[in-house]
Amino acid sequence: MDKLFLEDLSVGQTAETSRPVGAADIDAFAAVSGDTNPVHVDEAYAATTSFGGRIAHGMLAASYISAALGTKLPGPGAVYVSQSLKFRRPVKIGDEVTTRVTVKTIDERRGFVTLDTVCQVGGKAVVDGEAMVIVPRRGA
Amino acid sequence: MDKLFLEDLSVGQTAETSRPVGAADIDAFAAVSGDTNPVHVDEAYAATTSFGGRIAHGMLAASYISAALGTKLPGPGAVYVSQSLKFRRPVKIGDEVTTRVTVKTIDERRGFVTLDTVCQVGGKAVVDGEAMVIVPRRGA
Repeated sequence: MDKLFLEDLSVGQTAETSRPVGAADIDAFAAVSGDTNPVHVDEAYAATTSFGGRIAHGMLAASYISAALGTKLPGPGAVYVSQSLKFRRPVKIGDEVTTRVTVKTIDERRGFVTLDTVCQVGGKAVVDGEAMVIVPRRGA
Repeated sequence: MDKLFLEDLSVGQTAETSRPVGAADIDAFAAVSGDTNPVHVDEAYAATTSFGGRIAHGMLAASYISAALGTKLPGPGAVYVSQSLKFRRPVKIGDEVTTRVTVKTIDERRGFVTLDTVCQVGGKAVVDGEAMVIVPRRGA
């Protein structure tokens, strides 16, 4: 697991993860969050909606952004300050979600770093937004 | 599970959920998200940080907002458009997280509804922000 300090970061630096979304992931997310909205957990109900079948929680894809930040860039030690999220397209069972975080701005004095954050399926954004984290200096 | 239509909503309408956060919840969230940052899953490491012990993923608390929207207000049928999140304080093992969503604005013509969203522990905000959802009209 990477652990980067403020001095290790530069604008444009990027990290990527990829995860398939299975029915079991959606069920596990429903259990841990309490979000048992039937569009996520009830195939018969979901089939009657405009989605045509079960979709993942948007916040499940968002959790992959948290994972990319917390394990890849900047990795452990960074403190999550804020995240904006736009839910652009549904994630369906069997979709492979690629999550990319890219350093956008670095406030060297205060340690605030913003990153563009996007989850994609088949090259199209499903969730995107911006993260802000505080990144410690080496030896601080 | 409530299922409210646009006509059922009014500004100031509110719904609340409450969930205790256990170590098992943090482990489950780490597994489903892939966010295995040791501040969440490794007590020995987390004890060396400024938090003094394991903390929950901020996005776990955020998932309770998704749950309140998806199961309470407006409930199933609403489509999540966006969410802003500020991570204000850590959530620790044993904390009881109360999540409240409150209707802030209603765009009657387009069906867009914004809600204030806040997760609290002991009366203090741990995560807050604003949600936007699209809510269908009855019979639409």
